[in-house]
Amino acid sequence: MQDGSFTSAPFSLSVDAMGGDNGPATVVAGLARFLKRNPDARVLLHGDKTQLEKQVAKRKIEDKVEIRHSDGVVKMKDKPSQVMRHGKGTSMWAAIEAVRDGEASVCVSCGNTGALMAVSMVRLRKAEGVNRPAIACLWPSLNKGGFNVMLDVGADIRADHEDLLTFALMGASYARNGMDIQRPRVGLLNVGTEEHKGRAELKIANDMIARAAPQGEFDYVGFIEGGDIPSKNVDVIVTDGFTGNVALKTGEGTANLIGQLLKEAFKKTPLSRIAALLAYTSLQRFRKRVDPRRVNGGVFLGLNGTVVKSHGSADATGVGSALYLAYQLGQSGFSDRLAARVAQATAVAIDETAKANSS
Amino acid sequence: MQDGSFTSAPFSLSVDAMGGDNGPATVVAGLARFLKRNPDARVLLHGDKTQLEKQVAKRKIEDKVEIRHSDGVVKMKDKPSQVMRHGKGTSMWAAIEAVRDGEASVCVSCGNTGALMAVSMVRLRKAEGVNRPAIACLWPSLNKGGFNVMLDVGADIRADHEDLLTFALMGASYARNGMDIQRPRVGLLNVGTEEHKGRAELKIANDMIARAAPQGEFDYVGFIEGGDIPSKNVDVIVTDGFTGNVALKTGEGTANLIGQLLKEAFKKTPLSRIAALLAYTSLQRFRKRVDPRRVNGGVFLGLNGTVVKSHGSADATGVGSALYLAYQLGQSGFSDRLAARVAQATAVAIDETAKANSS
Repeated sequence: MQDGSFTSAPFSLSVDAMGGDNGPATVVAGLARFLKRNPDARVLLHGDKTQLEKQVAKRKIEDKVEIRHSDGVVKMKDKPSQVMRHGKGTSMWAAIEAVRDGEASVCVSCGNTGALMAVSMVRLRKAEGVNRPAIACLWPSLNKGGFNVMLDVGADIRADHEDLLTFALMGASYARNGMDIQRPRVGLLNVGTEEHKGRAELKIANDMIARAAPQGEFDYVGFIEGGDIPSKNVDVIVTDGFTGNVALKTGEGTANLIGQLLKEAFKKTPLSRIAALLAYTSLQRFRKRVDPRRVNGGVFLGLNGTVVKSHGSADATGVGSALYLAYQLGQSGFSDRLAARVAQATAVAIDETAKANSS
Repeated sequence: MQDGSFTSAPFSLSVDAMGGDNGPATVVAGLARFLKRNPDARVLLHGDKTQLEKQVAKRKIEDKVEIRHSDGVVKMKDKPSQVMRHGKGTSMWAAIEAVRDGEASVCVSCGNTGALMAVSMVRLRKAEGVNRPAIACLWPSLNKGGFNVMLDVGADIRADHEDLLTFALMGASYARNGMDIQRPRVGLLNVGTEEHKGRAELKIANDMIARAAPQGEFDYVGFIEGGDIPSKNVDVIVTDGFTGNVALKTGEGTANLIGQLLKEAFKKTPLSRIAALLAYTSLQRFRKRVDPRRVNGGVFLGLNGTVVKSHGSADATGVGSALYLAYQLGQSGFSDRLAARVAQATAVAIDETAKANSS
């Protein structure tokens, strides 16, 4: 279903060009990379018209991009609540609005995560059956595709059992549509794999997700531990936003530490510096495999429309990855499929759990 | 204060030789390594006398070890509650009992973590002012000493604000006595560094720990994120047992993933295999730095006596590291210092918080 039959929107993507630490030049450079590989895509670009026209002309992508001017810019330090109230007229707001109005399938921004989520919630609204939207990230893994999905990594304070069930359904749908895994294996993050371990809401969610698996067309592998996140045992990792955020940043921190120690080890002596030269291609191969820019793009799930958040500090390669991910999700009609799936399966799981508890 | 002036116990260590996946031969091999570097230490060894006598004779450490026979062995699959009730007569029980009776300063076991904590709680009892004991681990870091301390990693379901304060005090004391950091920097793990972020108990704990810092003789750096765990920004990371356990295992999982990908990168082509040979010493230097066996040893804090849990799958090097850590803590009189510190500082912090809230 990669034939675009799901997308009736005139634009594939609606891009906020002004967010991010590196300014619109980097966003447009990433866009040019993306368009080179996906020449059929059409993009709506929001931001300062003068700056954008210059950048778009420089990259020679005028025929594939429509620039729409907006005066305001959401800054990284702006408070989400402020942006929600006074953000109309910013490029971020306009980028989301285009998805709401059906002009584009997916919105992409490198801007302020909190503000992006707040405006998305207000303008796109939560999908039916979703109480708490989530942010899903990709995690390098030993699986064939090279990545696992984890959600929620959005730093939301907690999630109850029904939220965790919704995350399982949304995560499975994301893995199917964004990563082409027909029957994703879903695991629930806990401090042990035994059924009696963990918090109360985890035990209830464990039962509910198991019941929802056949209807949701995924395999439920039960509780998993932190060590399983990058493993072959699972495709989708479900957890609350607090734990997910800590795990994500711990993984990034560990990868950075190891990278730095590896560099130091190769710089220690003259001989090791020669060894590093000879090992250059091997090390490059390794670096490419764990390059965080390749996994750039947190996807907001559970709204009436898909929003992809690119890292604020993303370079052109990183922006390109986020745009490609967004494009793939838009092409698969992900948002509509997800909504249908969640509404259906949540109802069934809650019914069955109620039945099981009353019998 | 490494002159042993604090330890009046006749034995430096009380070791459960029967726990662990690799059996008593590995524990005794680790013990021999430890004694070679610390010839003044005297060790009480618990387990099957016949097996232990053979192993001890083989390693020629008879003059430094007293073997004490016990019939029972706690298995990895035994339920903590069962061991608590019927575990008398096991080597694990006897090893803890020797600390309770003042025969040894510190207990070390490779056995079942849950059972070890349960029996330790029952026999050693919680120290004054401690409501929830914690397990602290060492984490490879960019700090000069090479490690940070994180607690609780014990998979306890949650911790309230007073527990988190106690963890801060205990963690600081551990860093001072076990790692020789005179004024440890303590951080509280959260999903952002802004003061308004995170769960309610984290905000209260944030205030309480800040107030307790002068009395506890540590510096409080405030909220930190997952990426700071292996960083230079902090020495002690405070968190609840659920989050800490997930973070620890996520870090281990990420390190394993990277190790595997690095290996694959060097095996890809004939040329990369040659490069690997030439890079051998650099890679060995790197491996040594991130070797998990060097950080083996979870320390139980908040009991009347110190208990060190070595990894169940530890080899002789790993066991040796855990024994050395335990020895160092015993020599510094850690347990008594910790108890005094916690009782004092908790009282002050709670008083001051009450005053601040009522004024």
